[in-house]
Amino acid sequence: MIERPLIKFCKNCGTAVAYRVPDDGDTRQRAVCPACDTIHYENPLNVVGTIPVLGDRVLLCKRNIEPRWGKWTLPAGFMELEETVAEGAARETTEESGANFRMGELFAVMSVTRVGQVHLFYRAELLDDRFDPGHETIEARLFEEAEIPWDEIAFRTVREALRLYFEDRRTGVFGRIHTVDIR
Amino acid sequence: MIERPLIKFCKNCGTAVAYRVPDDGDTRQRAVCPACDTIHYENPLNVVGTIPVLGDRVLLCKRNIEPRWGKWTLPAGFMELEETVAEGAARETTEESGANFRMGELFAVMSVTRVGQVHLFYRAELLDDRFDPGHETIEARLFEEAEIPWDEIAFRTVREALRLYFEDRRTGVFGRIHTVDIR
Ligand SMILES: [Zn+2]
Ligand SMILES: [Zn+2]
Repeated sequence: MIERPLIKFCKNCGTAVAYRVPDDGDTRQRAVCPACDTIHYENPLNVVGTIPVLGDRVLLCKRNIEPRWGKWTLPAGFMELEETVAEGAARETTEESGANFRMGELFAVMSVTRVGQVHLFYRAELLDDRFDPGHETIEARLFEEAEIPWDEIAFRTVREALRLYFEDRRTGVFGRIHTVDIR
Repeated sequence: MIERPLIKFCKNCGTAVAYRVPDDGDTRQRAVCPACDTIHYENPLNVVGTIPVLGDRVLLCKRNIEPRWGKWTLPAGFMELEETVAEGAARETTEESGANFRMGELFAVMSVTRVGQVHLFYRAELLDDRFDPGHETIEARLFEEAEIPWDEIAFRTVREALRLYFEDRRTGVFGRIHTVDIR
């Protein structure tokens, strides 16, 4: 789901689409159906996750899926319909780590224009150090700041979220949202 | 684009799709192509906008488009690919009001589960009171708090954003992000 497959056929009637600017005042090229006039919009997707913390340690998950198999990440994944941002972030944390935790505040909103995504991270407080990761995770474990495998982090947004988290912890100031643009 | 048309045909090969849970460990029903195995994901969309302010007045736009034709809204619309949240919010503000403004901080992140949307509002500072609304807006004008047409506001998220804005202004505390769930 990282690469978006090109829209070649109309989702409503199966006719081959044409790429053009619709006649409704739009300014962007869309996949438009010449048979039934359906316009196929493509918009950014939200990736929602948490920064789960126990004392001075942060939980990272070693990815058992592509992309970035074997690299470390914060628990996060695509937001689904019928859930809030916080519910999605909590669901992903449960799926990828099996941790017991309490959700905290929204911490960062990161626009990743190159892949058409917005990454939203909540803080989360771990209730213990027992994990039960699902099939997407090889291993879930806690890291002190000095132990973070910076060169083995799966995504730039995760690296940036961790960097900002440790920075806030040093200054003792939490509560301000971080809005970050990653090109 | 408010109602999502049902996916009936594969966007990759035009074959009629079947709704089922994919075999890759997924837990949700998706539109899956029986011919080429393309899985069609549907995820929440971001609506991005601003709360444009000049002194103690807020800019609202009277909608010239459906849904909610003739109702008042904050400038906002669907986030597009290749832009950040802030760039999208600024673009919508320009398109719908033609205002001169400076972008401020992220103010609210609202999950609207019923329609599968996340609404993100930035604060914005108007530089003057001259507007030049585009085709989506009948009229753009400034309202003091006491003048806000609360019963003629187009969307619940806009009403809530305005309510939170005036509340923050009374307490004088800005800077905390508002995370709101609207069912
Ligand atoms: Zn069609
Ligand atoms: Zn297909």
